[in-house]
Amino acid sequence: MKIAIVGASGAVGQEFLRILSENDFPVDELLLFGSERSAGRTYPFRGGLTFPVRVLTEEARDFEGVDFAFVSAGASVSKQYADVITSGGAIMIDNSSAFRMDSDVPLVVPEVNGADAFDAPRGIIANPNCTTIQMVVALDPIHRISPIRRVHVATYQAASGAGATGMQELEQQSRELAAGQAPTVAKFADQLAFNLIPHIDVFTDNGYTREEMKMHFETKKIMHAPKLEVSATCVRVPVMRAHSEAIWVETEEPVSIETARYAFASAPGVVLVDKAEALGYPMPLHAAGTDPVYVGRIRADLANPRGLSFWTVADQIRKGAALNAVQIAQYILKHRQ
Amino acid sequence: MKIAIVGASGAVGQEFLRILSENDFPVDELLLFGSERSAGRTYPFRGGLTFPVRVLTEEARDFEGVDFAFVSAGASVSKQYADVITSGGAIMIDNSSAFRMDSDVPLVVPEVNGADAFDAPRGIIANPNCTTIQMVVALDPIHRISPIRRVHVATYQAASGAGATGMQELEQQSRELAAGQAPTVAKFADQLAFNLIPHIDVFTDNGYTREEMKMHFETKKIMHAPKLEVSATCVRVPVMRAHSEAIWVETEEPVSIETARYAFASAPGVVLVDKAEALGYPMPLHAAGTDPVYVGRIRADLANPRGLSFWTVADQIRKGAALNAVQIAQYILKHRQ
Repeated sequence: MKIAIVGASGAVGQEFLRILSENDFPVDELLLFGSERSAGRTYPFRGGLTFPVRVLTEEARDFEGVDFAFVSAGASVSKQYADVITSGGAIMIDNSSAFRMDSDVPLVVPEVNGADAFDAPRGIIANPNCTTIQMVVALDPIHRISPIRRVHVATYQAASGAGATGMQELEQQSRELAAGQAPTVAKFADQLAFNLIPHIDVFTDNGYTREEMKMHFETKKIMHAPKLEVSATCVRVPVMRAHSEAIWVETEEPVSIETARYAFASAPGVVLVDKAEALGYPMPLHAAGTDPVYVGRIRADLANPRGLSFWTVADQIRKGAALNAVQIAQYILKHRQ
Repeated sequence: MKIAIVGASGAVGQEFLRILSENDFPVDELLLFGSERSAGRTYPFRGGLTFPVRVLTEEARDFEGVDFAFVSAGASVSKQYADVITSGGAIMIDNSSAFRMDSDVPLVVPEVNGADAFDAPRGIIANPNCTTIQMVVALDPIHRISPIRRVHVATYQAASGAGATGMQELEQQSRELAAGQAPTVAKFADQLAFNLIPHIDVFTDNGYTREEMKMHFETKKIMHAPKLEVSATCVRVPVMRAHSEAIWVETEEPVSIETARYAFASAPGVVLVDKAEALGYPMPLHAAGTDPVYVGRIRADLANPRGLSFWTVADQIRKGAALNAVQIAQYILKHRQ
């Protein structure tokens, strides 16, 4: 396979390189693209050759013969270069929000709706938002038992969601505060170290942020569930990597804790960590750098006889971004005729 | 007034001293009590005399003539010494969980149920759990418009909830990590710096922690609302001081955002911070050390036509503990015949 990574120097781009290095994805040729700022940098791959980052241009020949292009350079880059990237027949797996809600672009989480990947007339498959990915992996096993009607979700989102510069800023602020200095605030709206910022992406007219509305709309699309309503509160927390979510679901029929636990334990992509004791629950520190969506703290919803409550943690850069995109390509390779 | 503070060297005890120093509470005599470990320490009060901490004993004469005893030394100390403290007629305002659910002990948040303070046959008034206090101050203005039936709440609880040693541990871990050292873990179940711990207080049989069940039961009692059901997920976050909560409520009749906003803006103890722009919402960094319960991010619940969603932040040691206790005493002084 001929693989291109667009945005190779970013946090997600670097994770693409790590994931493709680690697993057995059939990479015969590798092309790295980035901005002028990162052009010329080189990265090793599978311990062998190093690959240079080239400047992304409008030159369609750059993508000739490419099978899969993993793109993570922001929505405006995705919009501008989608035609160039796909013109030679490449499947563009796009990590940005540019095309997610387009009716002719599937939005795919392989564990949930992998088959949608084959309905991609424009050659573009969208990777959902990180918070949505880990949530739908956890919702789907319950939804298959009894359809979910309502979801209330409060997120605890790591600095990694704002990319490498987000993580650097949290680290820098923590060092500065430890040294008794004023913290540098540039990427986030305010100091993130020792603080919480209930504001991710821009505000929309209904008072929800776009991040919150992504969870609302993307979940319906991925799960093919137009009646499944999500109300989210998205909060940035001073954690380096891995997002956490406190979730309540209401199903059409009651689902017992035992049934839910069994469903989670046997669901693809999920690791159940659910013991009523110290450390018997998922935490971001331990999820960072790993692949699964961890689920724990499973309880009956005390405020709803048809409700369940649980807690999920997943690495935002892996399952929340690069890993899911690679899994989409793997799904296509495995299932196509 | 003759005032006693039991647990004077703790985080909450120290806050009692600060609050009583700052405000015009009529303190004529001041007695400080603590463990043998803190006995002999002295603390200044209102910039004048310094007061020594004495060892708390079973000697009832120590509390003779005391009007109010503010007690914050843990549930076992409260249970052991309640009779001693109240034997001379003192009103014991207890910050622990020891008596909160006793039918002959009122559980009071002055803005919500101040009058309950006068129904205290044992001379004991309980201060609710910190997470409950800030939540009911925010629920009550909505509940007065239309009764609340269901509450879903995810908490973001600061290290201060575990007392002074909790804050010290988070600070120490952050310094150690900044210096490239392994973090010291003693007070919390795991590293708190750059991590989240969805486990506060012990687990109960239904999978909820006791902290979560406190929110469930205490809310019913304070609000005189046996049908108001709360499902909580309580999470420790690497914030020094001030707890935050993402809350969804379902009311009997729909309450519009405009009505809710007006109710919050005019509610006692609440400060509305609700603009759809950067920094237009409450954050713990700015709430730390202040008195109000801040409310913002008010939205219609997209998953419930009779639902509202909002975000509250309050200083756990002030309104969540010492301030509420002092306000109970102030309420009694103001309203008693």
